[in-house]
Amino acid sequence: MRRIVLTLEYMGSEFSGFQTQPGKRTVQGEIERALFEILGRKTKVFASGRTDAGVHALGLVLHFDTDKAWQVEKFSDQLNLILPKDISVVRIRDAEEGFDARYDCKEKTYGLRFYLSKHERPFFQNRSLRVNDNVDVNAMMESCKFFIGKHDFTAFVARKSGKSDFEREIYSCFIHKINDEEFEFVVSGSGFLYNMVRIMFGTVLSAGTGKIKPSDIINIINSRKRGNAGMTVAPHGLYLLDVKY
Amino acid sequence: MRRIVLTLEYMGSEFSGFQTQPGKRTVQGEIERALFEILGRKTKVFASGRTDAGVHALGLVLHFDTDKAWQVEKFSDQLNLILPKDISVVRIRDAEEGFDARYDCKEKTYGLRFYLSKHERPFFQNRSLRVNDNVDVNAMMESCKFFIGKHDFTAFVARKSGKSDFEREIYSCFIHKINDEEFEFVVSGSGFLYNMVRIMFGTVLSAGTGKIKPSDIINIINSRKRGNAGMTVAPHGLYLLDVKY
Repeated sequence: MRRIVLTLEYMGSEFSGFQTQPGKRTVQGEIERALFEILGRKTKVFASGRTDAGVHALGLVLHFDTDKAWQVEKFSDQLNLILPKDISVVRIRDAEEGFDARYDCKEKTYGLRFYLSKHERPFFQNRSLRVNDNVDVNAMMESCKFFIGKHDFTAFVARKSGKSDFEREIYSCFIHKINDEEFEFVVSGSGFLYNMVRIMFGTVLSAGTGKIKPSDIINIINSRKRGNAGMTVAPHGLYLLDVKY
Repeated sequence: MRRIVLTLEYMGSEFSGFQTQPGKRTVQGEIERALFEILGRKTKVFASGRTDAGVHALGLVLHFDTDKAWQVEKFSDQLNLILPKDISVVRIRDAEEGFDARYDCKEKTYGLRFYLSKHERPFFQNRSLRVNDNVDVNAMMESCKFFIGKHDFTAFVARKSGKSDFEREIYSCFIHKINDEEFEFVVSGSGFLYNMVRIMFGTVLSAGTGKIKPSDIINIINSRKRGNAGMTVAPHGLYLLDVKY
């Protein structure tokens, strides 16, 4: 058997998230259906992680095993011919010995795109989060640095999460302008809890509206109380940008 | 009566073009419906020009007349509250004396976005034209300059056009890289015939695939034969960028 590593991009808007769910359209479901079609046998994929419904990816990594002796590009060429329009394979390679896309992941980077406007704008639909134009972006930028470091992120996890270990390390966190009209909240870390990035950004927004001071983020983290953090923002501005091994 | 000038952006994918057509969803239809709703009377709009089905706009200009004495921003605020998600008003002002959005237009600029890839990519869907990655982009860039000047563009108009005056002046025409993955063919001129930009780009593509030499564009223009120019490319990468008065 041979292990192949794929990097995918997909637009999450029309998926019920990454992970297979009976009766739902999911990214994993579409990939495994396409692999069955090109390989002629049921082939399971193992991903660096899941994304929620509506969340996009520019660099999700997964692996699968096969006994086909094709040139590696043939797998991606064949997949790209039959995958639906909202998923495509952007990179492919043979895995090094012992590589596992699930367990070997060392760092993930998410980007949350937003724009400032009183009203929704056509080209940002499903792609970028609208933020009211009366926020203080400098306060939002300032607040990001307080997330950096190793912390217990209990205050930043959806209550329904089944996890018990809430310690994660944030390596970098900042907001930058990506073009004349759009900003991006970028955060890299060892891993992320359920809804964590969306709650982090909701809390950064609280700093933008003046509901909290940027440095209050330290106290919110230390409180370990979900109720002290900000709202869970909508998923459609969120992108899994990169996974490092 | 008072004349108001609006600049609109819209995503053309779900419209049967700009102009009102019975039973079809059009940009003009949606704007006039919204104006009726906020002004309480039938109000016709007059635009700088039409766009075809699937073509987008970032700066279409139109005017309408009203006797409402509102502060001018109130018209756009009210419109943006009720316009559908794929249209929004980006600028508004009172017209100077005698201004007409239809007749006073001096220059229009279109952009046609494209990316190079063997396969369709998710985030470019409905927004950017896929071009096979074996084209010679330098030849395409080189070919643009041959359009500049005053010419009879009979070879670059859809056969079904009812117009009889085919002379137009192109002020500028070039291809630039808009980001790591996308290019844009930008053309400004005194006016454009039906499908003209899409046929111009189809001809630039012929230079990219080596079917013609860049300088052949001069001969194609002079031939005045539609059959000598390139294909009419799909509309979904095309944007009306700007209208000058």
